[in-house]
Amino acid sequence: MSLKIDVILTVNESRQEQLLGRTVIVIDVLRMSSTIVAAFLNGSTEIYPVETSGQAYSMKDERTLLVGERFCKKIQGFDLSNSPTEIIKSKLDGKKIVISTTNGTNAILKATKGDEVLIGSFLNGNAVAQKAVQNKKDITLLCAGTRNMFALEDALCAGFIISSLLKHCHIDCSDLAKMVYASYVHFKDDLLNILPKTVTGTRLQQFGLHQDVQYCAQRDICTIVPYLKNERIFVHPNS
Amino acid sequence: MSLKIDVILTVNESRQEQLLGRTVIVIDVLRMSSTIVAAFLNGSTEIYPVETSGQAYSMKDERTLLVGERFCKKIQGFDLSNSPTEIIKSKLDGKKIVISTTNGTNAILKATKGDEVLIGSFLNGNAVAQKAVQNKKDITLLCAGTRNMFALEDALCAGFIISSLLKHCHIDCSDLAKMVYASYVHFKDDLLNILPKTVTGTRLQQFGLHQDVQYCAQRDICTIVPYLKNERIFVHPNS
Repeated sequence: MSLKIDVILTVNESRQEQLLGRTVIVIDVLRMSSTIVAAFLNGSTEIYPVETSGQAYSMKDERTLLVGERFCKKIQGFDLSNSPTEIIKSKLDGKKIVISTTNGTNAILKATKGDEVLIGSFLNGNAVAQKAVQNKKDITLLCAGTRNMFALEDALCAGFIISSLLKHCHIDCSDLAKMVYASYVHFKDDLLNILPKTVTGTRLQQFGLHQDVQYCAQRDICTIVPYLKNERIFVHPNS
Repeated sequence: MSLKIDVILTVNESRQEQLLGRTVIVIDVLRMSSTIVAAFLNGSTEIYPVETSGQAYSMKDERTLLVGERFCKKIQGFDLSNSPTEIIKSKLDGKKIVISTTNGTNAILKATKGDEVLIGSFLNGNAVAQKAVQNKKDITLLCAGTRNMFALEDALCAGFIISSLLKHCHIDCSDLAKMVYASYVHFKDDLLNILPKTVTGTRLQQFGLHQDVQYCAQRDICTIVPYLKNERIFVHPNS
């Protein structure tokens, strides 16, 4: 069996045929994907991605934490920012999370046209690749990008996930998939140096969030595979 | 001096601010850029890029050759196809060329928003890089892509030209420029194997045009620098 692998570099570029009938892996390394993985790592049971802060406020109750940012800063009235290092240190106590971010939510909503939607990051790349292969559907890596533009860290993570896919099955890469894979191989021993120098990494550093960038650059620290079902994100039970 | 380097992966993605005030290098490796360089190598003095075959027919006279393709095949009534190996063997006799192709012409017309427009390919990458540096303007590498989609060979050529720019000046690469450079470095010793396997390369091979693909994969075989002026393409006299 050979799975076709395609890549979308920014949400706006996605075409319907790249999503329909496929396993779609949403990648927003800095920081939504990484925050979601960190939240599940720290005991969260379900996460609602929403577009607007208004939607989030309307869902607030005792059992729910609001997590989100606009342009790197925590949204006013929210409990936590979209920060994996903040999430990992917080007491989530099995609470639900409502999350809203600048780009990531948009990417997840776009991905719902796919057959199954998984959330990928450096933190869980191999586990996500394994799960995607089990689905036996062609795979699209949907990079969220930053403010509707290309984000190098997402493309490198797509390349990293392709390197993991290669361990588990035969794959047939599109031209773009070949490029992101090649650039990942080129940079793979230098991620901790490259990620802070990307457009998003630089911006986060300027906001004093260098620890987040370092955290998100870690590879395969867990086997958590978040997936979307009925507009909510859960963790696959065997992950 | 440090020049900013940006990359556009397909014509449709180009934003005005990536072109205005910049040196724009148009790249359509398979095959328009390579055909233009080959035509000048073989003695052509000026080339008119036009969008439609109708425009081309209206410009036909004794001193003009019509060159072009639609979906890899020579346009009916034209003198030559958009083939560098066909062009290089033809008697151009100092004639003008009118050229019309599926993607390349569109990329050139888009690029006219730039301060100066150069035509880049593997055949003349270093010479184009040198000329672009002399302009002392920020540089945008505009990849034509194939049928409005990403084409790996154009991105690799953009990476190749960035590797040449690095020899001539300090550069400040965008996230995308970093990616195409990294993927070029990864594939640079394997171009003759990679190019025939790209989407466009595969299509050309299916049409029996493998010699064109091999020809276009040659690096720095000349110092010709084609540039656009008043809707026509000439060669810089010192190139």
